[in-house]
Amino acid sequence: MSVSTQTTVLSGHSIIAGRETPGNAGTTRGIDPATNAELEPAYTLIDEAQLAEATAAAEEAFESFSALDPETHAGFLETIAANIEAVGPELVDRAATETGLPKPRLQGELARTTGQLRLFARVVRQGDHRGVRIEPPLPERTPLPRPDLRQRKVPLGPVAVFGASNFPFAFSTAGGDTASALAAGCPVIFKAHNAHPGTGEIVGHALTEAVAACGLHPGVFSLVYGPGASIGQALAKDPAVKAVGFTGSRGAGTALMATAAARPEPIPVYAEMSSINPVFLFDSALRGDADEFARAYVTSLTGSSGQLCTNPGLLFVPAGEAGDAFLTAVDRALAGAEGATMLTPGIARSCRDGIDALGAQDGVEVVARGKEGATENAPAPVVFGTQVPTFLSNPVLQEEIFGASSLVIRYGSADDLVVAAARMEGQLTASLFLSEKDLPTAAPLLPVLERKVGRILANGWPTGVDVGDAMVHGGPFPATSDSRTTSVGTLAIERFLRPVAYQNIPDALLPAPVQAANPWHLNRRVDGRIELAGDSAEDRA
Amino acid sequence: MSVSTQTTVLSGHSIIAGRETPGNAGTTRGIDPATNAELEPAYTLIDEAQLAEATAAAEEAFESFSALDPETHAGFLETIAANIEAVGPELVDRAATETGLPKPRLQGELARTTGQLRLFARVVRQGDHRGVRIEPPLPERTPLPRPDLRQRKVPLGPVAVFGASNFPFAFSTAGGDTASALAAGCPVIFKAHNAHPGTGEIVGHALTEAVAACGLHPGVFSLVYGPGASIGQALAKDPAVKAVGFTGSRGAGTALMATAAARPEPIPVYAEMSSINPVFLFDSALRGDADEFARAYVTSLTGSSGQLCTNPGLLFVPAGEAGDAFLTAVDRALAGAEGATMLTPGIARSCRDGIDALGAQDGVEVVARGKEGATENAPAPVVFGTQVPTFLSNPVLQEEIFGASSLVIRYGSADDLVVAAARMEGQLTASLFLSEKDLPTAAPLLPVLERKVGRILANGWPTGVDVGDAMVHGGPFPATSDSRTTSVGTLAIERFLRPVAYQNIPDALLPAPVQAANPWHLNRRVDGRIELAGDSAEDRA
Repeated sequence: MSVSTQTTVLSGHSIIAGRETPGNAGTTRGIDPATNAELEPAYTLIDEAQLAEATAAAEEAFESFSALDPETHAGFLETIAANIEAVGPELVDRAATETGLPKPRLQGELARTTGQLRLFARVVRQGDHRGVRIEPPLPERTPLPRPDLRQRKVPLGPVAVFGASNFPFAFSTAGGDTASALAAGCPVIFKAHNAHPGTGEIVGHALTEAVAACGLHPGVFSLVYGPGASIGQALAKDPAVKAVGFTGSRGAGTALMATAAARPEPIPVYAEMSSINPVFLFDSALRGDADEFARAYVTSLTGSSGQLCTNPGLLFVPAGEAGDAFLTAVDRALAGAEGATMLTPGIARSCRDGIDALGAQDGVEVVARGKEGATENAPAPVVFGTQVPTFLSNPVLQEEIFGASSLVIRYGSADDLVVAAARMEGQLTASLFLSEKDLPTAAPLLPVLERKVGRILANGWPTGVDVGDAMVHGGPFPATSDSRTTSVGTLAIERFLRPVAYQNIPDALLPAPVQAANPWHLNRRVDGRIELAGDSAEDRA
Repeated sequence: MSVSTQTTVLSGHSIIAGRETPGNAGTTRGIDPATNAELEPAYTLIDEAQLAEATAAAEEAFESFSALDPETHAGFLETIAANIEAVGPELVDRAATETGLPKPRLQGELARTTGQLRLFARVVRQGDHRGVRIEPPLPERTPLPRPDLRQRKVPLGPVAVFGASNFPFAFSTAGGDTASALAAGCPVIFKAHNAHPGTGEIVGHALTEAVAACGLHPGVFSLVYGPGASIGQALAKDPAVKAVGFTGSRGAGTALMATAAARPEPIPVYAEMSSINPVFLFDSALRGDADEFARAYVTSLTGSSGQLCTNPGLLFVPAGEAGDAFLTAVDRALAGAEGATMLTPGIARSCRDGIDALGAQDGVEVVARGKEGATENAPAPVVFGTQVPTFLSNPVLQEEIFGASSLVIRYGSADDLVVAAARMEGQLTASLFLSEKDLPTAAPLLPVLERKVGRILANGWPTGVDVGDAMVHGGPFPATSDSRTTSVGTLAIERFLRPVAYQNIPDALLPAPVQAANPWHLNRRVDGRIELAGDSAEDRA
């Protein structure tokens, strides 16, 4: 292990509305998956009565937090980012120990997490997500006059967020779901991931201190450690909670969806779950350096021990010489690759089970296999191979194996690709490797892929998700529970908003975004046309 | 009855992908609710195999319809409007006979329906709903270059629409849900309402002829008559169907929600269900002409026999003299009011049952009652009264009675209003009657109402929903199944869209909305800022 720069004394407790709260329901411990050693401290787990304190505080915080002025609101997100950066080195150390992920990867992820908070702060200041629409009154309209109508989006209410094990920063305590819910104006109750409890606590303190520093109601954020699924179910059932953000397995995600749908008041669940991310190689794309191409594939496949939602799990390779040469190169590239420590013993076990199950299917064979890693929980990466008809006839071949496992499908014609794509479940991504002359062949695949995935890439591997304005990290079920949105990028904020219309309401009662004077300088849709803030009469004056 | 101008010969059959299709599952008939007389012709009901033809055709139509150019697409919506207008008089006649609704009301509703189609055509031409976002590549960005990222919204797929009995035009065959789904680019399978089958067929032909006239795939629209709930459930379960639009009862809406959530691939359900639309009267607002005010209330309460989702079902009236005088005036105004024919014998029965049940509650008494109507199915309108503590303690008092029934709650202080509002279920609307000097008293109510309703009105009755850009006809459960949207107004189109991102895709493969040349002249969000079409370099050139 590296020399620790850790300075925070970890308490091992939940933080409920700003207060360290020892739990009444037993303890859990993080473990170092490279050695299976248990880590200090033990983490106390809360019971349902303690959880109710967190949700009640969030409910209480909602009114003031949801009405925050843009400058204070954006400053809050920026303070969280700064506070996280201030403990960056110890965060990376702790996360590396708890997750087995390499430090450079974690450093990059930390930068993504703080960058995301700052990006969302810019959106909060700019304000287009507030969706202001104005229809001035038309008293002379026949047969009926038009009233004064003003629309804006308001936050849904407190949001329950469940973090992912595979992104201890970017999809965890202050990750995408938390950041987008806070940017929308929703208090967050974060269910800590028990696989990285110390990392969660350090981030939780950074966030809690930002709440205090910005003078916000302490109920704006709580971090709770609880006994696995039961506390998660209780959280999703709590009447104060108005939406759920989740990243994790299909089983856990669909369980949350069922719970949310069965509530007396059903609520939206944004669950990012399962994807095998098909990659389509066109013949000409394989005409270059087969070894270089194979190495890029193996890098995408084995990075973070394959534990990425956008891992290339399915590879369509043309029959014939170029495809053969590519697979020989994959065999060479993978032979030297060693398994890397996975996040938890349970995940490593599931990965091995998945690999065994896939290898046992009729018509599926091993194309290439790497070596077991030297640490614990480091299964050998593997690439399987099959043919299109086998893929079409056996749904097991579409099941995600979370880890460095991929299935190559040899295909004969571009029609095969359209047929296979049409039969696929929903995915986060689809990738095409093609050259200029493949465009006419690839064109019929595009509309099929648009119905199946959230992001289509050309000549790039699906791992690596840019956090920006145009990103979609989402897709039809089972990739996510709700294809109408994204869990990465600025559009994610809109998941936690709903529209409200104001009809003939006196200006003095209107909230700032829809007041006549436009005090927040928002772009607004007036009479059906966008009016940029700089173009309004007031701004010109 | 009036002289009929009917010219269409009604076939009594479903229209599946452009073909009149006699059903294999028995027949049903419309009835004239004013006389309980059965109407010609009998309508044949389809079975599940026939339903599958409609959904398969919609699935087949999707690819071409979803990619339609804006001009053809908008022209299609306008052709539907023109075709409906061409049969306007016979439509109004038939609807009046089938629903018992007065002709002037139906004429207004027909104009709203065609106006809505033309408004959506303007949105389709303008294109902001396509949500185009572009992030140009940043090859020099560190630590990683930014790829070329382009986002646009695509239609979800075929949509099942269930019409309402109370709006045979505006929330039925070519009503809001159909129009917004078609505007989004989604084929529609419309489950005809068996309470106005002839009206449905005439509109269905108008729509089918527009599909043919515009050269579209016939699967873009089907109108199916089926045996009640079973065919509706089958439609919501069909794998080709990707969303549901519904207006109707809480029971039927929640049943559809449960079915959609239990599918192997869950889909969104937009159900507009149940609302009692609280109205808050402040003392000073009652200082004017009590009789005039009471008449306006009674008009809103009894219009369309009270069968409006925005019917004022709950009225908070201050204790004291002004409130007393208002209720005396309500008594006078309602005493002369006669019940009007309701839509169906079943609805009239439910209304009477609801009135009996509410009248039997402890602490609830009759404040005013009108007379039974002279026709069948015309229960007397009624206004009940109670006090705040009774309202807070008995959830039955929050149940919607669909019809001309309203509950007056006498309150002592503005705090009572905040408490009562906080305890309410989700609503479509809330209305405030107030004057300048009530503003400080009313202010604390606003944030509470924002969490409970989709539209807040001042000094107006909630009935009457303007179809425009800033309208929200929606609200938290049980008003609707999904508070994140509206079923009236242009924002309704966005219910049927989802985002897709394109990363480094060659321009030749990109769909028109995100191509570099911006051939559809769309406003686009570029690098996080709105760029109006007229401002782009190309447009300036």
